[in-house]
Amino acid sequence: MRLQLMTWMEVEAHLNGNRGIIIPIGSTEQHGPNGLFGTDAICPEVIADRAAETLGCIVGPTISIGMAQHHLAFPGSIALRPSTLMAVVRDSVLSLARNGFERFYFLNGHGGNIATVSAAFSEIYAEKSLAVGPNQPHVRCKLANWFAFPAVKEISKELYGDRDGSHATASEISVTQYAYPEHIKKVDMDPAPPRPRPFYDAEDYRLIHPDGRIGADSFLATPEAGARLVEASAAGVVEDYRSFMAEA
Amino acid sequence: MRLQLMTWMEVEAHLNGNRGIIIPIGSTEQHGPNGLFGTDAICPEVIADRAAETLGCIVGPTISIGMAQHHLAFPGSIALRPSTLMAVVRDSVLSLARNGFERFYFLNGHGGNIATVSAAFSEIYAEKSLAVGPNQPHVRCKLANWFAFPAVKEISKELYGDRDGSHATASEISVTQYAYPEHIKKVDMDPAPPRPRPFYDAEDYRLIHPDGRIGADSFLATPEAGARLVEASAAGVVEDYRSFMAEA
Amino acid sequence: MRLQLMTWMEVEAHLNGNRGIIIPIGSTEQHGPNGLFGTDAICPEVIADRAAETLGCIVGPTISIGMAQHHLAFPGSIALRPSTLMAVVRDSVLSLARNGFERFYFLNGHGGNIATVSAAFSEIYAEKSLAVGPNQPHVRCKLANWFAFPAVKEISKELYGDRDGSHATASEISVTQYAYPEHIKKVDMDPAPPRPRPFYDAEDYRLIHPDGRIGADSFLATPEAGARLVEASAAGVVEDYRSFMAEA
Amino acid sequence: MRLQLMTWMEVEAHLNGNRGIIIPIGSTEQHGPNGLFGTDAICPEVIADRAAETLGCIVGPTISIGMAQHHLAFPGSIALRPSTLMAVVRDSVLSLARNGFERFYFLNGHGGNIATVSAAFSEIYAEKSLAVGPNQPHVRCKLANWFAFPAVKEISKELYGDRDGSHATASEISVTQYAYPEHIKKVDMDPAPPRPRPFYDAEDYRLIHPDGRIGADSFLATPEAGARLVEASAAGVVEDYRSFMAEA
Amino acid sequence: MRLQLMTWMEVEAHLNGNRGIIIPIGSTEQHGPNGLFGTDAICPEVIADRAAETLGCIVGPTISIGMAQHHLAFPGSIALRPSTLMAVVRDSVLSLARNGFERFYFLNGHGGNIATVSAAFSEIYAEKSLAVGPNQPHVRCKLANWFAFPAVKEISKELYGDRDGSHATASEISVTQYAYPEHIKKVDMDPAPPRPRPFYDAEDYRLIHPDGRIGADSFLATPEAGARLVEASAAGVVEDYRSFMAEA
Amino acid sequence: MRLQLMTWMEVEAHLNGNRGIIIPIGSTEQHGPNGLFGTDAICPEVIADRAAETLGCIVGPTISIGMAQHHLAFPGSIALRPSTLMAVVRDSVLSLARNGFERFYFLNGHGGNIATVSAAFSEIYAEKSLAVGPNQPHVRCKLANWFAFPAVKEISKELYGDRDGSHATASEISVTQYAYPEHIKKVDMDPAPPRPRPFYDAEDYRLIHPDGRIGADSFLATPEAGARLVEASAAGVVEDYRSFMAEA
Ligand code: NI
Ligand code: NI
Ligand code: NI
Ligand code: NI
Ligand code: NI
Ligand code: NI
Repeated sequence: MRLQLMTWMEVEAHLNGNRGIIIPIGSTEQHGPNGLFGTDAICPEVIADRAAETLGCIVGPTISIGMAQHHLAFPGSIALRPSTLMAVVRDSVLSLARNGFERFYFLNGHGGNIATVSAAFSEIYAEKSLAVGPNQPHVRCKLANWFAFPAVKEISKELYGDRDGSHATASEISVTQYAYPEHIKKVDMDPAPPRPRPFYDAEDYRLIHPDGRIGADSFLATPEAGARLVEASAAGVVEDYRSFMAEA
Repeated sequence: MRLQLMTWMEVEAHLNGNRGIIIPIGSTEQHGPNGLFGTDAICPEVIADRAAETLGCIVGPTISIGMAQHHLAFPGSIALRPSTLMAVVRDSVLSLARNGFERFYFLNGHGGNIATVSAAFSEIYAEKSLAVGPNQPHVRCKLANWFAFPAVKEISKELYGDRDGSHATASEISVTQYAYPEHIKKVDMDPAPPRPRPFYDAEDYRLIHPDGRIGADSFLATPEAGARLVEASAAGVVEDYRSFMAEA
Repeated sequence: MRLQLMTWMEVEAHLNGNRGIIIPIGSTEQHGPNGLFGTDAICPEVIADRAAETLGCIVGPTISIGMAQHHLAFPGSIALRPSTLMAVVRDSVLSLARNGFERFYFLNGHGGNIATVSAAFSEIYAEKSLAVGPNQPHVRCKLANWFAFPAVKEISKELYGDRDGSHATASEISVTQYAYPEHIKKVDMDPAPPRPRPFYDAEDYRLIHPDGRIGADSFLATPEAGARLVEASAAGVVEDYRSFMAEA
Repeated sequence: MRLQLMTWMEVEAHLNGNRGIIIPIGSTEQHGPNGLFGTDAICPEVIADRAAETLGCIVGPTISIGMAQHHLAFPGSIALRPSTLMAVVRDSVLSLARNGFERFYFLNGHGGNIATVSAAFSEIYAEKSLAVGPNQPHVRCKLANWFAFPAVKEISKELYGDRDGSHATASEISVTQYAYPEHIKKVDMDPAPPRPRPFYDAEDYRLIHPDGRIGADSFLATPEAGARLVEASAAGVVEDYRSFMAEA
Repeated sequence: MRLQLMTWMEVEAHLNGNRGIIIPIGSTEQHGPNGLFGTDAICPEVIADRAAETLGCIVGPTISIGMAQHHLAFPGSIALRPSTLMAVVRDSVLSLARNGFERFYFLNGHGGNIATVSAAFSEIYAEKSLAVGPNQPHVRCKLANWFAFPAVKEISKELYGDRDGSHATASEISVTQYAYPEHIKKVDMDPAPPRPRPFYDAEDYRLIHPDGRIGADSFLATPEAGARLVEASAAGVVEDYRSFMAEA
Repeated sequence: MRLQLMTWMEVEAHLNGNRGIIIPIGSTEQHGPNGLFGTDAICPEVIADRAAETLGCIVGPTISIGMAQHHLAFPGSIALRPSTLMAVVRDSVLSLARNGFERFYFLNGHGGNIATVSAAFSEIYAEKSLAVGPNQPHVRCKLANWFAFPAVKEISKELYGDRDGSHATASEISVTQYAYPEHIKKVDMDPAPPRPRPFYDAEDYRLIHPDGRIGADSFLATPEAGARLVEASAAGVVEDYRSFMAEA
């Protein structure tokens, strides 16, 4: 169930015994010649929906802008500074915690978010850890990446091997093609060269990755691969979420 | 065109002569017994899409969490503090401005956002106004409320008169019923009492508006009304956006 | 009674049964060829003093610098960023609330403050709304513009019609001439042209409003008009403040 | 000349060859049984006006709320957190610097402001010192305390000796009695006991200084003493300001 | 060479052709019954010194307080909020960058710092990536963990296997015993139980790890093991730093 | 005892009846031709260690980077903005206070820190002073400068008179020569000229103090003088700390 499509009375009823929520988090950033800006938001959103069908849990509104400073030399990319994204995560968690949500499962689609979202969790905990009194709620936050479940990695490897790459991957583009088949882009491109070295700021990124991809043969994407990946990732989420909820 | 469904090369091409963008902005907050949490985000999103068909312009990702502190006593509501939302608006605008976007048309669905988003615009301008040098980009931001175009107000008045109310209005719920007909909620409720006085913080709001509505007979909503409202509002956006782009 | 001219024991005594305070808030910004920098602070200060004579209430120290980024291309103008002004309002309210003040009536003289001060109120409420516990005080804040009471608008219209304008208005300059007759400036100027379009940042403002006025024939100001306006506005404040204090 | 009573054209003309400004800064805080809340703002304001007559310089709007956390256990006291006051000082200085002001002479009336205002100056400088480029203006800020000029100290000593104290001093109350003779308060009080130890937070302050004074026999204040002190302090300001402006 | 023991003229001379610096970063937090609070700062400091002997590079002052909110239920632990640590890293990097340092190699001793320091790097880059102009310096930052070099991991595994644990590890305590042999603590303790589940805030951490260790048989530490680990880690740093400096 | 070399159980035991801690705070900044970057951190660290031997108290980790914006035109200098240093001091104090530390004695080595650290104390107090409830701990913070004890000043005067100067003083360099005899730098330099005027930002500082010293004949430093100064300052700390702990 998407929170956005529920009423507050439905949420109130659901909170009896269900203290968890899945929050998809992504980015709005270039994904190479044939990848969509919304790729990193679309993937976890689609997978969260699928997992929630099984879990019967609530899926919060997708945080669709993330920490993507390195993509800012490509027009259309949007980035929150880490400090801004941390404030968004904090306010969202504390809002929901105020009325009884206790466990927050962020399903992430963007590698660039990982450090910042982890720091955001620590910022939330730190407010409580620094305080002597009992005023702040006791929350638990977890970040999972849709692309990191073993079964997902196996499919990516089987289908694309090294050619999957690390940005604008054939895998993630497949998922968006599955989700939005009417928006599949046909673009000619060469196989991507290997990553020469790490990137730093936006100018630097574009210098070494001029068309936006990192080592990814994005043109290998297919909606059929997307369907398999969504299924596998949703199964991973189901198991991982259940284990998070079952923690003592 | 939704930015999320475009590639960066498409955006780059589009930027030749098109420096504007529409950004829907809403909230995730209770909307009474039969209103959806996502009402304020769904409305401007649907209307922006419709207007963009005519305008041929880009629609950015919806900012779906807003300044909704007053709804926080209802479970499921999410609020960004004004300072957080201001940072989100600032980073989004500066990200896009970096690569050539110049005019930002925020289409808003939530009254509670108006002051904060206006303050956010001033915060962006202030960075530039306080500086002597020419480092910051020259941007223009405008906020329009989907429900405030004269033609929209007329329809609301014709259909609901005073019973439209000011939160969880029959009008906004109609738009969501039109957009998500499979999520129309059937809930019994009485006509809403008149607003006794202004509300202040979240506890205070729930005290005087116990089921979340403010003077709204939300049960009068129909998807047919929604269709009319979307059409009228989109027409208002088309005209208003064109005039914003045409400014000297 | 001006707080600045009272002792703490007088305030303590007054707080028995009087939980309200009026806080004038203005700006320090250019007001065209014959308008004073302090116009927006002087007007609410004078009017608050007059109203307080009737109300027997306390008038806090005037916040004389406001959100005036758009005037910064004129030498002498001072602006607080929205985030700074929000911190000032927050700290002031919480300081007074700590010892028993509960209702804060900000009497405003500057249109540019409205959004930011409203956002500041929400920032204060949000600290409480986001918290589960009962630690923060329960305060109510209200913003009223001295120039917006119906009786004030009628006088402005009667005296100046459309020529009153929207910045450096004949009305506000009249009030300062009444308050500081020894500082009436005689300056030749033409009738102001109509406002061509909205302004954005400071550079933009000066570009389209080169002498600082917006559509205002400021030379029409007279101290006699000022006297009438002060009287009318003070009467508006008295009624509005009483109704604010009487709220359940 | 008070900036608040000037027009922007007058300021523009004045800036030819005069790059300095005096900004009075005070506090709104309890000053014992017979001292006014505004004492610390009134004193530098009156003295700045007097000095400016001789200097022919501009006096900016008084910053009348300061860093007074330690007085917050007395009703009516208002405090800005240090971080808030720093933002106010920064924005004010940069606003004026944008159009040509270069030397900022803060005339202070409140010991509690000294550290914070000094830190604010460093925060302003640090923005420039950390940057490689030449974007920020080159400003110089100075803080002077009206009560610290040798001639002022001599008068205080001559008149009150040790009984002047360190808060709600007979000297500062004298200045306010001179400035506002109609607001002289007649209150019985005992000689103040000596200061037992330093104070820390607000609760602690009130615990050891229950009527608000620190070692001050405030009842010794007279308007005649105030007149002498104002004269002496203004002379100190004139000399000190001239030397600040004359710096290479 | 430790920066703290150099003069500025030595640094200026060194900067000719050497644009890198190593900055040790640790924490001040409980390390179980026999571990020192300074463990996470001491380890990278000792190893950086050793590596710098070979590299001939500068070692900046150790950042000895880190992001350790989860240890705050143990007396003596000190934590910076993520936002604070990010500001420290930013200011330090920009300070050094202002005068020519370009590549910053942070040698880290505390797992809890990783996300926050990575977010800090992004915050630095984001300032530049969001800006159009060329005002900010072009810097590169890298974080390496002293305990993560393959040769280090092999020694840990060889010596302690699974009993090394993940906090207050036998390995890190060995390094401190090597560095401070006069401060080896003899404390009786049982083998550590396995980690039951992830920890969240400080209270939660102490609940599930009552003596502070996580799965670590810290009593196995020896100064001899420390010597080996320092040697291996320093060799790893030498190679890694050289490769960072050699990047195009 | 250095906290960094203790275990948490030792701290817990110590806290029975000992609620104080000494925290050395310095800077990393140029100290002229023969002074070490670490001078301001080394001095209070060495003196705190010596005093703690007598006092039997805990010495926290040295805050070795301070507010040194004015030194940033010399390569190698590092500065925290005042707002950053305030956050560091706040988080450190609140971390220790959470578990029972109550009195914080900062031993300072850098004049540039004084205002900022004092403001930081007020920021800590203000959080509590602004709050009605009892949630924040009741702490007391004190700042003492190692060089300001009367006995220290006498030695400096006896040895160096006016030639001690005010930055890169012969006295402070003597202390570092005593502490690090193997790092005594032999550099030719002329007697320092007198200070022409106050400095402002970093560029300005270097302009008027081109080799970094302010009025200091730093070449007069000797390790023997350092030994005497350490002894005298440590004795001052012992007495001052005891009196701070003895406060009611
Ligand atoms: Ni991606
Ligand atoms: Ni709504
Ligand atoms: Ni005005
Ligand atoms: Ni005073
Ligand atoms: Ni460790
Ligand atoms: Ni020094």
